[in-house]
Amino acid sequence: MRPRVALLGLDWGTTTLRAYQIDGAGVVLGERSAPSGILLVENGNFAGALTDLVADWLAADKNLPIIASGMIGARQGWREVPYADLPAGPDELAPIQFDASFGAQFDNLTRPIHFIPGLAYRNAQGVPDVMRGEETQIAGAGGDGLYLLPGSHSKWVLVIGGRITWFATFMTGELFAALKDHTILGRMMVGTADNEEAFHRGVACGHDSGATLQALFSARTLALFGDLPESGVAAYLSGLLIGAEIAEARALVDNATTMITIIGEAALSQRYQMALSACGLTGQLGPRQAAAQGQWRIAMAAGLVAA
Amino acid sequence: MRPRVALLGLDWGTTTLRAYQIDGAGVVLGERSAPSGILLVENGNFAGALTDLVADWLAADKNLPIIASGMIGARQGWREVPYADLPAGPDELAPIQFDASFGAQFDNLTRPIHFIPGLAYRNAQGVPDVMRGEETQIAGAGGDGLYLLPGSHSKWVLVIGGRITWFATFMTGELFAALKDHTILGRMMVGTADNEEAFHRGVACGHDSGATLQALFSARTLALFGDLPESGVAAYLSGLLIGAEIAEARALVDNATTMITIIGEAALSQRYQMALSACGLTGQLGPRQAAAQGQWRIAMAAGLVAA
Repeated sequence: MRPRVALLGLDWGTTTLRAYQIDGAGVVLGERSAPSGILLVENGNFAGALTDLVADWLAADKNLPIIASGMIGARQGWREVPYADLPAGPDELAPIQFDASFGAQFDNLTRPIHFIPGLAYRNAQGVPDVMRGEETQIAGAGGDGLYLLPGSHSKWVLVIGGRITWFATFMTGELFAALKDHTILGRMMVGTADNEEAFHRGVACGHDSGATLQALFSARTLALFGDLPESGVAAYLSGLLIGAEIAEARALVDNATTMITIIGEAALSQRYQMALSACGLTGQLGPRQAAAQGQWRIAMAAGLVAA
Repeated sequence: MRPRVALLGLDWGTTTLRAYQIDGAGVVLGERSAPSGILLVENGNFAGALTDLVADWLAADKNLPIIASGMIGARQGWREVPYADLPAGPDELAPIQFDASFGAQFDNLTRPIHFIPGLAYRNAQGVPDVMRGEETQIAGAGGDGLYLLPGSHSKWVLVIGGRITWFATFMTGELFAALKDHTILGRMMVGTADNEEAFHRGVACGHDSGATLQALFSARTLALFGDLPESGVAAYLSGLLIGAEIAEARALVDNATTMITIIGEAALSQRYQMALSACGLTGQLGPRQAAAQGQWRIAMAAGLVAA
């Protein structure tokens, strides 16, 4: 017997839309993606972007529950969904139903979509931090511990008792891009960030210096003095920022674990795994389809899918 | 009797060329500037840029000694001058003579120009740091203590016994510009960086957090939650980076002084003065014509000008 699709999961971020056909046991039966992130969809035509990708999936079952996570629930997305508070696990991440209109070109079809809320909290200094989408990946990974979700805005997340109790955001990826493309540091860069020796040297500098604004300049002076080949400058700077991120996260998180589960794109996750190891920590790669797993768990908790 | 010009001083950086007529006692008799920094001079025609600004000064005295400081002595400048080592004061900053050719359009005039070397050293981790131009301003300020020269690449400099014994570079200004113009933080900014309350809030966050990559994200979340007006985001980010710079510099410098002499452009110096005060330090504004004073002192030490 062919397994039956029980849930359509949408992992919809700023650059990419990923759609999953998920069965009643949480197994992913089908997966598609398109560069239809919320910043790339024209005129807010989210219904159009969704049908462009999965019109046949939508047509196959008019009653298929749809669940969505990520920036699609932000102010700039399809519908703004409030943030949930900490601590939060699948039970607290109850999705909010919104009847999406697909317009005249789809026979004025209206279907409910269940938007998973993001998370917000204020740290000890009263400063807010937020996430949208990572809470669903964490729910999918499903265990206690310390998680790292690298990217433009890298997140470190602590899970205790199956619920997120703390997290922090680091602007590592976006900072790297801005420094590389728009400061003097980029002028000495030749080639990609793949020089492993230079990467490790950067990690050590960034992790140990404790003075990031000052350490940044070493990406220029080391090349100026021939201590670092120009082909290693990008890797060195990448390592420096990741090393600084690891040092900052260790100082911020109130937990002594040395095992960190990494959830993210493969090449970047391996880069962080190398850096963690160089800093005396252990990075293990988390499940690849964490978002779909989390969507299924949250849908189960909300009664959208029968067990 | 009209005072006699004894020295032509050139403070020649990446964006601006400043020229000074200096008398035998170090008094500046005339000052001119042009946007003829080394990155803006076309085809390396430095002789042309110089005569465009001060042809009459050059013609008035064919034997007038000329001394130059700043990036004009870098690899991309008119002539690359080696770096001097620490510790360094006017005696160690002996300028290197170079016979500059002014070409056919100036009757193939050749005149010696005395280029002041920059400084380089390796810190305790073996990482090099460099300056070109600031060593001359410090020589002009002329006293022991801790100096701060804010800008794209902010310098902190320790002077003991009339010689520079330590310095460090912080990419504060360039980082601010890159974050403002090329990351998500800039998207919420409205207006200038002049909101004093937001600036002070940023200084406190940057100075106290110890986690700069993480603290940066607060420039977004505080605005997202309405805790910070969008008209204050630029000032907050500026304060955050300056506060982080001050914390890093205090941790790096092996000196307990709380009095810091600021040498730089007036508005930026006042901004740093406010920030230092908020961090329990005292910033005093240094002499305005420190570069010309330093050029005169170095010229005196080298015997280019009679006392």
